Amino acid sequence: MAEKNNRLVDISWKEFDKLGPNERAPYFNDNGRVFHALLAQQFDRPALDRLCDLATNIRKIAKSKEGMQFLQSLLNHKRVMFYFTQPSSRTYLSFCAACKILGMAAADVRDAATSSEMKGESQEDSVRTFSSYFDMIVMRSKTSGLAEKMAWVLANSERPIPIINAGSAQDQHPTQALLDVYTLERSFEHLGGVDGKSILFVGDLKRGRTVRSLSILLTKFREVTQFFVAPKRFQLKPDSQKILKEAGVTFELSGNFERYVPKADAIYMTRVQDEWDKKPGQSRKSDIVKYHFKVRHLRLLRPHAILMHPFPRREEIEVDVDHDPRAMYWRQMRNGMWVRVALIATIFQCDTEVLAYYRKHLG
Amino acid sequence: MAEKNNRLVDISWKEFDKLGPNERAPYFNDNGRVFHALLAQQFDRPALDRLCDLATNIRKIAKSKEGMQFLQSLLNHKRVMFYFTQPSSRTYLSFCAACKILGMAAADVRDAATSSEMKGESQEDSVRTFSSYFDMIVMRSKTSGLAEKMAWVLANSERPIPIINAGSAQDQHPTQALLDVYTLERSFEHLGGVDGKSILFVGDLKRGRTVRSLSILLTKFREVTQFFVAPKRFQLKPDSQKILKEAGVTFELSGNFERYVPKADAIYMTRVQDEWDKKPGQSRKSDIVKYHFKVRHLRLLRPHAILMHPFPRREEIEVDVDHDPRAMYWRQMRNGMWVRVALIATIFQCDTEVLAYYRKHLG
Amino acid sequence: MAEKNNRLVDISWKEFDKLGPNERAPYFNDNGRVFHALLAQQFDRPALDRLCDLATNIRKIAKSKEGMQFLQSLLNHKRVMFYFTQPSSRTYLSFCAACKILGMAAADVRDAATSSEMKGESQEDSVRTFSSYFDMIVMRSKTSGLAEKMAWVLANSERPIPIINAGSAQDQHPTQALLDVYTLERSFEHLGGVDGKSILFVGDLKRGRTVRSLSILLTKFREVTQFFVAPKRFQLKPDSQKILKEAGVTFELSGNFERYVPKADAIYMTRVQDEWDKKPGQSRKSDIVKYHFKVRHLRLLRPHAILMHPFPRREEIEVDVDHDPRAMYWRQMRNGMWVRVALIATIFQCDTEVLAYYRKHLG
Repeated sequence: MAEKNNRLVDISWKEFDKLGPNERAPYFNDNGRVFHALLAQQFDRPALDRLCDLATNIRKIAKSKEGMQFLQSLLNHKRVMFYFTQPSSRTYLSFCAACKILGMAAADVRDAATSSEMKGESQEDSVRTFSSYFDMIVMRSKTSGLAEKMAWVLANSERPIPIINAGSAQDQHPTQALLDVYTLERSFEHLGGVDGKSILFVGDLKRGRTVRSLSILLTKFREVTQFFVAPKRFQLKPDSQKILKEAGVTFELSGNFERYVPKADAIYMTRVQDEWDKKPGQSRKSDIVKYHFKVRHLRLLRPHAILMHPFPRREEIEVDVDHDPRAMYWRQMRNGMWVRVALIATIFQCDTEVLAYYRKHLG
Repeated sequence: MAEKNNRLVDISWKEFDKLGPNERAPYFNDNGRVFHALLAQQFDRPALDRLCDLATNIRKIAKSKEGMQFLQSLLNHKRVMFYFTQPSSRTYLSFCAACKILGMAAADVRDAATSSEMKGESQEDSVRTFSSYFDMIVMRSKTSGLAEKMAWVLANSERPIPIINAGSAQDQHPTQALLDVYTLERSFEHLGGVDGKSILFVGDLKRGRTVRSLSILLTKFREVTQFFVAPKRFQLKPDSQKILKEAGVTFELSGNFERYVPKADAIYMTRVQDEWDKKPGQSRKSDIVKYHFKVRHLRLLRPHAILMHPFPRREEIEVDVDHDPRAMYWRQMRNGMWVRVALIATIFQCDTEVLAYYRKHLG
Repeated sequence: MAEKNNRLVDISWKEFDKLGPNERAPYFNDNGRVFHALLAQQFDRPALDRLCDLATNIRKIAKSKEGMQFLQSLLNHKRVMFYFTQPSSRTYLSFCAACKILGMAAADVRDAATSSEMKGESQEDSVRTFSSYFDMIVMRSKTSGLAEKMAWVLANSERPIPIINAGSAQDQHPTQALLDVYTLERSFEHLGGVDGKSILFVGDLKRGRTVRSLSILLTKFREVTQFFVAPKRFQLKPDSQKILKEAGVTFELSGNFERYVPKADAIYMTRVQDEWDKKPGQSRKSDIVKYHFKVRHLRLLRPHAILMHPFPRREEIEVDVDHDPRAMYWRQMRNGMWVRVALIATIFQCDTEVLAYYRKHLG
């Protein structure tokens, strides 16, 4: 049983509900300990550095059968619940793989039709039910703020287990942001890391929660410039711009894709999030094709720069670009598994055990 | 491979089909050994006492990582099949968790659309298929008596594996009854146990299979009084009343909720089972709100009494009641996992191994 | 990580796409090593013999808890992905069981609605995603040749993991053919094996992919005669007949069921594959009932002959036939699990380890 080690017991729901993400973030760890993973904001720079290092150690340990069996021994006494009421395959599968690497047994509810919600149960009761049988909940939802609300509910119950937000509405997708940061860190390992780099975001920046979460995390690094290139209707929302301004970050908005490609150390392509369209086909009107990365753009790309995409991809990146060594999106995807392993290991405080194994066998 | 250790081979389907639940019950164990878990009737008092004791031992063993790893070693060579063609999350998830605690690998068929039934296979063939690959079947169905029929089919096949009934139509939900009994036993541990207590059932007593199963199990205890409070159209069915009469049990039917609250040692609240309505909305006509447990009822409740609910809950119990220490329904839910572990351990005859471990490490 | 040990990197998609199954088959192994399992054609006689022997050894090892734990230790560092977009329960469950016997962790995508395909992702990207998190893909699809295409895609990616075809359109179901061969081998173990036997196929031979795959595999044995009995509209397709002719196999087509029953060493019954009907009910016109195996046919069946069925069964075999010792279809089904364990062990090159264990403990 987890101890009551998060600060959410000290605040009423009414008060908590009024807080913005920045004010909420500190409630999700306790004296620097990561308990839940709900908002990109909650991770400070030292926490990000620790996670990236841990992910790299885990990745190397996992290369041998013995290493994999060590990792599986860490949490083989724990059970995880996947509560995914919004369609997902990539995030779901990478969490599945991550939990299995740590030996956790998993169960899932992915379809409201097979669940008790049909019988009129409240979501609070559903989540408390999951906490009765499982030691952690990974949840993805169409409802903004639901994971944070459930963390509050559990904190005030007898079984305050950790919750990981695997994507909520249009607002956040913090583990995606963690894997993006890890990909940037790995790629610029010999170039001084993320500090001082220029990141170009392209596509549907208005509704893409991966952009929002990564953009926030990048404010934790020194002198990172952020470029946002999109058709006007898909440009970054004012609230996201406000976060950047308050953090004193240099950023530019533009509609001119080709002008910004040569300026970037990393380009983060995104698809049009048309599942949020109010009318079907509404997004198709946009002349989005101008914002696609074609083979011909490769010559504009700096030699050390990398090309990223959170996937799924449609036509944002031409398939033939895949063969270029600067196409980092497939490795980025696999990084997602490793950083999730690292995150879960951190939540359950196995990090020191992992580091000890690494030093002994691979250090 | 399980031996042919159940008596179902000695009787033809035609004869078996004619038997009532009481007459069928003895066929599901062999010289006191629990083989299937299909009907509440099949558990006698010593079997119930053994199960409750085992559940408590397992619960304590599971508190340490070493204990959990011991439990997982018990059945890590066995595979379980979840065959749930009726929606469920709580029962499904608690069985998932229970099987994983014992190290069993699981697979499931929860949606007829993904299965071969679409291709016109008989249910007998489907269940025999499951028995070809798995060592136990946990099934939930809308069809009355299906689990018992399938137990008979398998007993007369080459792979007579155990079946657990995880809820069948309106008739039975035996593992729910087991967890209810375990909850009562735990709660009255220092008050002489279940014997001599008064249990008040409230709600849709006509169609609630949890009420039916628990009511039957309570007849195995000494001098338990049963009260049934419901609007007339939801009162206990004559056949259930008949079972109580034949068992010589003291029971009362009433429509007056508030009069009975102060008389009970345990109150068992249930929701309206409107999924069985012939016309949608049919149940809504009932003035069921009079039978809801509100915060103001807490002062009527005896100090040592407990409040139970099989869940899902709608409005039968006001949420603010949750904070009262007599609200036992969340612990009741978690008890469900432990009693299911105990049941499966019993079916696979690991109970002595568990007790030996307990005595050595925790006794 | 799997090495780039398959020949698919040496050929462009354009060239590969033009090849027929016989020409493709050699690409799926490397110097006799089974890497993917995609087409019946790829298995030569020595490979079949090795698989059958391995399946038997595994089956015997699995009888003890220690043996089962040994098997689970072989691949407990590997993860498998089930990608089943066509309904299946038998094949799915037997693969689940097989993977769990080898200790593999599994995840699945069975319903396109819960996956990213909804978001417009290409199947190539989906499969590359799976390969990012998993070590093997088992796939079933309505699209002819999809598994082979995906094997080519992965071979030309950074993570060329093995693919097993668990049924593709009307064309192939190679692991079903392997289990059918294993069933024949086991049944004729003391009668000289499959060589020299006569196999009678009955039913929908036109659209049944199990018939097609088994018929091809039988050409690898010496002097096997193949009889095909069906109504004209369901007779074996010309391309399948052509394969038999080219292999120099003796075969006969007929519409007369009762004349052929006494000639067969094995009868392979199949159901009408009406899910491929262009108009609903189209197949029902056929006078297929003449091709059903009834209890009265048992007296026509040779004493040593066996009766097989790939299941699901409708009315092709009367249920009362099940009790005859020559009814081999239930054992055939369970053989499917063992041969799949053997296949996966072969793909991951655990076969020598299994044989060593067998010799030491059971030889």
